[in-house]
Amino acid sequence: MKLLEERIRQEGLILSDTVLKVDSFLNHQVDTVLALEIGKEFGRIFADEPVTKVLTIEASGIQFAMATAIALGVPFLYAKKKKAVTQSDAVYSVPVHSFTRQETYQVSVSRRYLGPDDNVLIVDDFLATGAALAGLVDIVNESGAKLAGVGCVIEKSFQEGRDLLERKGVRIHSLVRIASMSPGEIRFAEEERTIHHVKEKV
Amino acid sequence: MKLLEERIRQEGLILSDTVLKVDSFLNHQVDTVLALEIGKEFGRIFADEPVTKVLTIEASGIQFAMATAIALGVPFLYAKKKKAVTQSDAVYSVPVHSFTRQETYQVSVSRRYLGPDDNVLIVDDFLATGAALAGLVDIVNESGAKLAGVGCVIEKSFQEGRDLLERKGVRIHSLVRIASMSPGEIRFAEEERTIHHVKEKV
Repeated sequence: MKLLEERIRQEGLILSDTVLKVDSFLNHQVDTVLALEIGKEFGRIFADEPVTKVLTIEASGIQFAMATAIALGVPFLYAKKKKAVTQSDAVYSVPVHSFTRQETYQVSVSRRYLGPDDNVLIVDDFLATGAALAGLVDIVNESGAKLAGVGCVIEKSFQEGRDLLERKGVRIHSLVRIASMSPGEIRFAEEERTIHHVKEKV
Repeated sequence: MKLLEERIRQEGLILSDTVLKVDSFLNHQVDTVLALEIGKEFGRIFADEPVTKVLTIEASGIQFAMATAIALGVPFLYAKKKKAVTQSDAVYSVPVHSFTRQETYQVSVSRRYLGPDDNVLIVDDFLATGAALAGLVDIVNESGAKLAGVGCVIEKSFQEGRDLLERKGVRIHSLVRIASMSPGEIRFAEEERTIHHVKEKV
């Protein structure tokens, strides 16, 4: 997604070889026009799947899950990172280790809202180690729902997340793939648009 | 907002005299059509204010802040509950006690994204004790921005949140006000639409 690459070049701050800060437009302050475009792009990419629900994890996935759900005309669902007082009934739950925060938390989704009749598109802001996304994939599999795929806004292709998800047999599409970065420099990988461009020409 | 009252009557689960569960359509699974309507309603209510930014707190405020920001054509900003690795620069920060979770956490917003040129509309899902919202009000005041007001999706009018915010001189509008509730029964308070209905007739 060229629009997003340009925006990252303009506003992204590279704090280290692994930390990219995009909090002026994606995950602290949010440009809703761009977020809605991101949702439309995921909607276009996964248009061949009869998605019934978009799934993400709180908090930074919510704006992109919402935009995608708007584009697809379905509800979205966000996994919680702690068991809340009001989350009293049965949940699907997996432990997820956050390398950013150096802690392990429990991710849960109410059993009421995912089941064998669902076809789920998982959406998140970043694909890096893939730990959170792998946890969501496990939850979808446990629920008996079909997994349409995983859509990530930004993939750090130099980290192991994609490999981890591909080993689980997951279809992944990232809107922007970063091949490498270091303070002052960012290199994007080729986007995987080929299949979808061919489809559009038919 | 009658649409929302009806939905709460249909799908809301009253777990105790203070806990209302609306996670099938508002804050776990989210009905985006309803969320967008909620955003439009806040946009209509605060149309007399030249809002530059919508502010909320992660996670459950995000979908409503986004919907409101879409309606108003401005960005939104969500306060973080923990200082993240990527949040390295100066922040406005206040401690907030959560009565639901029985813990105190630090709420922060980057100084880059709020300042004296802003006119801020705060949006959140629930107004109960008002602790989180009062924290956001303090952050807006500290930043030197003007506070347009606070929009809440659901107010538990039998709790002290509204009083706390009104003592701070804040304009509050809640889309639904619950006067009282107990398992199997919910009573709504009169909505404060009068002023806005008069405006629409002009």
